[in-house]
Amino acid sequence: MQKILSENINPTLKKISSKGLDFKKMNGLIPVIAQEMNSGIVLMLAYTNTSAFEKTVKTGYAHYWSRSRKTIWKKGEISGNSQKIIEILVDCDKDALIYKVQQKGPACHTGKPNCFFTKLL
Amino acid sequence: MQKILSENINPTLKKISSKGLDFKKMNGLIPVIAQEMNSGIVLMLAYTNTSAFEKTVKTGYAHYWSRSRKTIWKKGEISGNSQKIIEILVDCDKDALIYKVQQKGPACHTGKPNCFFTKLL
Repeated sequence: MQKILSENINPTLKKISSKGLDFKKMNGLIPVIAQEMNSGIVLMLAYTNTSAFEKTVKTGYAHYWSRSRKTIWKKGEISGNSQKIIEILVDCDKDALIYKVQQKGPACHTGKPNCFFTKLL
Repeated sequence: MQKILSENINPTLKKISSKGLDFKKMNGLIPVIAQEMNSGIVLMLAYTNTSAFEKTVKTGYAHYWSRSRKTIWKKGEISGNSQKIIEILVDCDKDALIYKVQQKGPACHTGKPNCFFTKLL
């Protein structure tokens, strides 16, 4: 099973390192914008640390750091609503990431397609 | 001049309050995803506090909190590359924002159209 999973991962993904990313500005964390690959819809914002980033790279699926539970979680681990990594972009300061993903099911824990469903303006 | 500016602002914008937003999780800050209104391209990620948020609402143009300079800055104040606020979205946890904007000129200080020009994958 592990072998099959590995073969499905883009080989370039496995070569990506967290080195060069600036985890210092936010005490070991970097914000990640999860964006739906095809539509460009911003699904959610979450945080990663070096371990969550390495798990994301190793598995090809988005893993984040939970600030409240202080643990790594795989997006969709319980709900099944996983995020397959298609592209990873980093910003000019190396302190913010975009994961372009294929989202399975709704991205938000409320059941909505994405977390930004409340329009202030 | 101030009067003319005020009249150009969407009246709903002026009624938006920072109350209800969760500034506590990040010591008074909330991350803001600036997204180009028409294309859906994510331009940059920056931070706001209550004062920068209020300035954004009052003026109709994106203001952020600089973590390094510890001051509010208007995007484009020096470069002229301002961000006119078209929509504001908040996420399910009230601790992340999207500003949908009309970007004047390039968004990145490097001169690139947006800050996420480095593709890791």
